[in-house]
Amino acid sequence: MNSHPGPLEPKADKASVRRHNLSLVLRAVHDAGEITRAAVAVRVGLTRAAVSSLVEQLIDGGFLTESGKTFSGQAGRPGTALRVATTGVAGLGVEVNIDYVSVCVVDLAGTDRLRLTEHGDNRGAAPAEVLAGAAAVAARALGEAAAQDLHPVGAQLALPGLVSGGTVRQAPNLGWNRIAAEGLFARSLTALRTGGRPLPVGSDNEANAAALAELWFGDAGEARSFLFLSGEIGVGGALVLDGRLLRGAHGFAGEIGHVVVDENGPECRCGARGCLEQYAGQAALLRGAGLPEDAGVRAVDELARRAAAGDARAATAAARAGHMLGLVLSGAVNLVDPDAVVLGGVFRPLLPWLAPAADAELTRRVVSGLWTPGGGRLRAASPEGDAARGAAGIIAREILADPAAYAGIRAT
Amino acid sequence: MNSHPGPLEPKADKASVRRHNLSLVLRAVHDAGEITRAAVAVRVGLTRAAVSSLVEQLIDGGFLTESGKTFSGQAGRPGTALRVATTGVAGLGVEVNIDYVSVCVVDLAGTDRLRLTEHGDNRGAAPAEVLAGAAAVAARALGEAAAQDLHPVGAQLALPGLVSGGTVRQAPNLGWNRIAAEGLFARSLTALRTGGRPLPVGSDNEANAAALAELWFGDAGEARSFLFLSGEIGVGGALVLDGRLLRGAHGFAGEIGHVVVDENGPECRCGARGCLEQYAGQAALLRGAGLPEDAGVRAVDELARRAAAGDARAATAAARAGHMLGLVLSGAVNLVDPDAVVLGGVFRPLLPWLAPAADAELTRRVVSGLWTPGGGRLRAASPEGDAARGAAGIIAREILADPAAYAGIRAT
Repeated sequence: MNSHPGPLEPKADKASVRRHNLSLVLRAVHDAGEITRAAVAVRVGLTRAAVSSLVEQLIDGGFLTESGKTFSGQAGRPGTALRVATTGVAGLGVEVNIDYVSVCVVDLAGTDRLRLTEHGDNRGAAPAEVLAGAAAVAARALGEAAAQDLHPVGAQLALPGLVSGGTVRQAPNLGWNRIAAEGLFARSLTALRTGGRPLPVGSDNEANAAALAELWFGDAGEARSFLFLSGEIGVGGALVLDGRLLRGAHGFAGEIGHVVVDENGPECRCGARGCLEQYAGQAALLRGAGLPEDAGVRAVDELARRAAAGDARAATAAARAGHMLGLVLSGAVNLVDPDAVVLGGVFRPLLPWLAPAADAELTRRVVSGLWTPGGGRLRAASPEGDAARGAAGIIAREILADPAAYAGIRAT
Repeated sequence: MNSHPGPLEPKADKASVRRHNLSLVLRAVHDAGEITRAAVAVRVGLTRAAVSSLVEQLIDGGFLTESGKTFSGQAGRPGTALRVATTGVAGLGVEVNIDYVSVCVVDLAGTDRLRLTEHGDNRGAAPAEVLAGAAAVAARALGEAAAQDLHPVGAQLALPGLVSGGTVRQAPNLGWNRIAAEGLFARSLTALRTGGRPLPVGSDNEANAAALAELWFGDAGEARSFLFLSGEIGVGGALVLDGRLLRGAHGFAGEIGHVVVDENGPECRCGARGCLEQYAGQAALLRGAGLPEDAGVRAVDELARRAAAGDARAATAAARAGHMLGLVLSGAVNLVDPDAVVLGGVFRPLLPWLAPAADAELTRRVVSGLWTPGGGRLRAASPEGDAARGAAGIIAREILADPAAYAGIRAT
């Protein structure tokens, strides 16, 4: 008798059982960092013989390596430690944002192994042109990665807008509407590469990708439920609940930048009035500090420098944005009750001036009374909370979930 | 080899396997409504012999009955149809709201079998007094239920505030702070009953209970992700995502009534200013229509009558509340992207006047562009979206999840 039969579960055949168990073992090693075969067997509930056979196949496929170290763990006699491979199959992440493109290659462990970033305003150019430019950076990254024996098996785009089914439904700050981003990028990339099979391309919202990077690689630690804000020209958001990204019924959850602050406020690029990003986005911050609002992300560092040097106008601009963030965040916290709110993007360098004002509103308005100023629930994103790395990590996770699908990839 | 071994899953012993399978079979019958043993076997993946043995135990325990009907399903030769029992173990739900107490007994199928409601303002009385009054109604309901051979195995309180660990952390509109509601209610109920073991008592937020009733008993249908609003003196809320209630990191998710509309707005009972319930709660609605704001829930029906009769002041008051609801709901929809927004409580009778204004704001502000006026995503709660029934249903679900724990209950 099966102990936990699910309703209508199809009988698994032998091949699919093995395929499943390959992933189980690979993920056990990934999660442990370094672990013996014997300890893997205990973790996953398979026999040592079964684990040894699966490990052999994973080593042959280039997914696992033996570290050479031997040590005795909890599970019996000493064994050779296993780690996930640091060469071979990899993930490529491509963040296309309003005023930069950032490309990143991660290995199977999720480590950021290569990074190329190009600044430049993407608002003037046609979508196809922007995506062709991003593909050029990606092609360069693929070349450099190959020199390190890293071979991305897929590319994941991170885009500042509503992304669904490979298409950007709307990216107000880029002025994009119904742009088939995956297809445009994939065609450009294929044209730039000589030989090899075309790289599969996926896509996601940039705040989603950044929130996943925070979850997987950052120091979110126990905060398994958090609201992530990505301050850029737009204000992106993502909700991670119990360690899982909330995508929403149509894939469009997290759009906190378009929560209303004042229904009669300034017009937003989305067509409505008084959205949060009109008060706390990069342009509002720079304008408030007397800096040119189109000066790009590096002007935010100047804003932070000025605030640190005691420039009242800069500090007040950040505090004002923090107050507006606090108003909207208090509503979001009342609605979803996350452990933490994590501020990334341009909010990170400005946190010393943003946070007190935001914290004050949250303390005043979170009805549970469980928000206290400086109580640690409002945090800066870790440097790992980065959309390109999160996007690349999505590919790495796909490999971990089914290594057998990628077993032949290095042979091509 | 186990096809889906979970990490570190303890080996299930024979007794716990049987216990699990009793629930599996009971739930299969519950979900199907009426089903043969053979069809149950196909659904749950057990042999017919195993199912027959489990069914026999469930019939002996009073959880299942044979309907007498025989019919041939998809799974072979004709069989006798099974249904869950309509007598025996049951659930008791007790909603304590600002100006009424409503008690309900449901059977194992979740059918509302008995209802007692008492109106009266609970704001003047001490919490212990209010809960003793609720216990008196509950005791009466238990007596009437016993006469129908229905025996609740537990009581679940639904309370208009922040509820966690048996305690009302805060119920602003009742003026309750840190009230040990479960204990107070249980002691009163035990004192009122002669004989029998004390009834276990649980507790939940009333909007959570109402949202679960909508999910389980209402016609939410395919809308498995919805935001539920319960308009009362306060405005409660609950989020159901992929068919599961979002409780939040501290159990306090759903508090949409305290999302800010205007930071300089009227003072709210929660201590902050300009919360949604100051614009769309029962008092604001009645005041706006020129009715006494303390006139109770039945005055809302008067408001609806006036609006239907063409009273401009009544219609405008409802439209104004709808506009404010729309502003806040658009933010919530941008943040969590649910399939639908379901309006319950006093919003139900007022929907014809509330909905157009709310829909207009949602259409204007939902950034995905997927909100269209009258598109069916803004709905009235079904009559089943009721907190007392949802609370009682929580007990019924507990029985379905582990019938063996309640097998001896009728013998006492």
